[in-house]
Amino acid sequence: MNVFSKFETELAVRPDDIDLYQHVHSTRYLDYVLAARFDQMDRCYHLPMTAFTAMGLGWYMAAAALQFKRPLGLGDRMVVRTWIEHFTETGCRVSFEIEKLPTGKRVCDGHCDYSLVTLQTGRATCLPEEIRAKYSV
Amino acid sequence: MNVFSKFETELAVRPDDIDLYQHVHSTRYLDYVLAARFDQMDRCYHLPMTAFTAMGLGWYMAAAALQFKRPLGLGDRMVVRTWIEHFTETGCRVSFEIEKLPTGKRVCDGHCDYSLVTLQTGRATCLPEEIRAKYSV
Amino acid sequence: MNVFSKFETELAVRPDDIDLYQHVHSTRYLDYVLAARFDQMDRCYHLPMTAFTAMGLGWYMAAAALQFKRPLGLGDRMVVRTWIEHFTETGCRVSFEIEKLPTGKRVCDGHCDYSLVTLQTGRATCLPEEIRAKYSV
Amino acid sequence: MNVFSKFETELAVRPDDIDLYQHVHSTRYLDYVLAARFDQMDRCYHLPMTAFTAMGLGWYMAAAALQFKRPLGLGDRMVVRTWIEHFTETGCRVSFEIEKLPTGKRVCDGHCDYSLVTLQTGRATCLPEEIRAKYSV
Repeated sequence: MNVFSKFETELAVRPDDIDLYQHVHSTRYLDYVLAARFDQMDRCYHLPMTAFTAMGLGWYMAAAALQFKRPLGLGDRMVVRTWIEHFTETGCRVSFEIEKLPTGKRVCDGHCDYSLVTLQTGRATCLPEEIRAKYSV
Repeated sequence: MNVFSKFETELAVRPDDIDLYQHVHSTRYLDYVLAARFDQMDRCYHLPMTAFTAMGLGWYMAAAALQFKRPLGLGDRMVVRTWIEHFTETGCRVSFEIEKLPTGKRVCDGHCDYSLVTLQTGRATCLPEEIRAKYSV
Repeated sequence: MNVFSKFETELAVRPDDIDLYQHVHSTRYLDYVLAARFDQMDRCYHLPMTAFTAMGLGWYMAAAALQFKRPLGLGDRMVVRTWIEHFTETGCRVSFEIEKLPTGKRVCDGHCDYSLVTLQTGRATCLPEEIRAKYSV
Repeated sequence: MNVFSKFETELAVRPDDIDLYQHVHSTRYLDYVLAARFDQMDRCYHLPMTAFTAMGLGWYMAAAALQFKRPLGLGDRMVVRTWIEHFTETGCRVSFEIEKLPTGKRVCDGHCDYSLVTLQTGRATCLPEEIRAKYSV
């Protein structure tokens, strides 16, 4: 059984993330996960999004699931932890947890299923072994 | 067994919804569901969000799950169909389907779990019988 | 002196446009103008954005100025009126007014300066005579 | 003649800021200015937004003007510099410059006119002397 590394990115709530309830709008948490993931692809996996684009490849979200525990508000800071849960033929499941700083209290968690696609056709493609290897840390 | 009505709202993609892949950004589909739901709360259930706010109540998203089938792009139109899947003690599960117009091809589907909260405390509250009755159409 | 046609597009506020003050977030009004403009390029000028993209051209915003008169809120509808104020060597100034419906009260107004760019280089290009002619209605 | 301090905040582009041209969407630059301003109100003026809210006051944008010089893209970092240009009876003009890091090349600049409002009425109110004093650094 593989267990993959968990990586962390610190982010701050932006004022334009706040919604009519004075909390971060529920759909923005996935944007925080995406921002953390882009940072970690570059910094932790050494395979930035630009490397995929240069290969004519992209990552499309195939599914997502989130549980919300407590909201973030104006001025809050957070840590976004993500890791690969498992690989599929054409991609992987990325799990995540968002915790409020400095308390470390859980804000939300969940997972996203990504498929690697050929950008020209928009169709899913088999995950190349060298990408899988670089992600298997 | 209760089966609740499905309601439909037509929406158009806005240029600011488009992302780096020239498609609607994955987190915006939940915003379409929210927009459709607000429209339908007013038009179909005769209980607009403003009525909840006036009662000191709000709907917080407790969980969400989405499956993405095919993307929408610039200038596309869609129908967003939502319905109550079941009630819980403090809220309900709302299921949804988004279809591209005019083809009717499935764009994405999923569900959102909502909790009714007292706005002053931010805590979940029992779903009042009169609200459940109005929603049971 | 040329006076160019004013065109109108009706739009509705989306719940995710609402900010911490319970009003439409100030930066979203330009997104409404953009949405109206894309609609009008297709419907009124018969030169949709996709036609520009197919020619390898894009419209970049070079400058913008807005005055805010009164805010829009949850559930509000609006009309967005835009027109070409004047042409420049590489583009045009588009003026706009947003009015709340059904009262017609002014929400905001202003203008955007656009430059036509060659997408491959990102550099401004002279406005071709046939585009200028189609826009001179 | 008063000349007021210029303050700086470093920010990173978030993937959801990227638009159909693979650049930061033109309306997001004002969101960066707002994020920088909130940070600086707290850190540099020692009057965070929460202090205004606690006094029943808010800052509404009355006007904005922007010039775009060069776009930011995926993964870019920036410095947002803002300062008070002058005071008005009910508020102030905040000027700003955004520069790309690490080159320091100008991305955009402009100004925003803010009015202090009483949140309960939404009406502009005279700028209290103690607020003006704290901002006159």
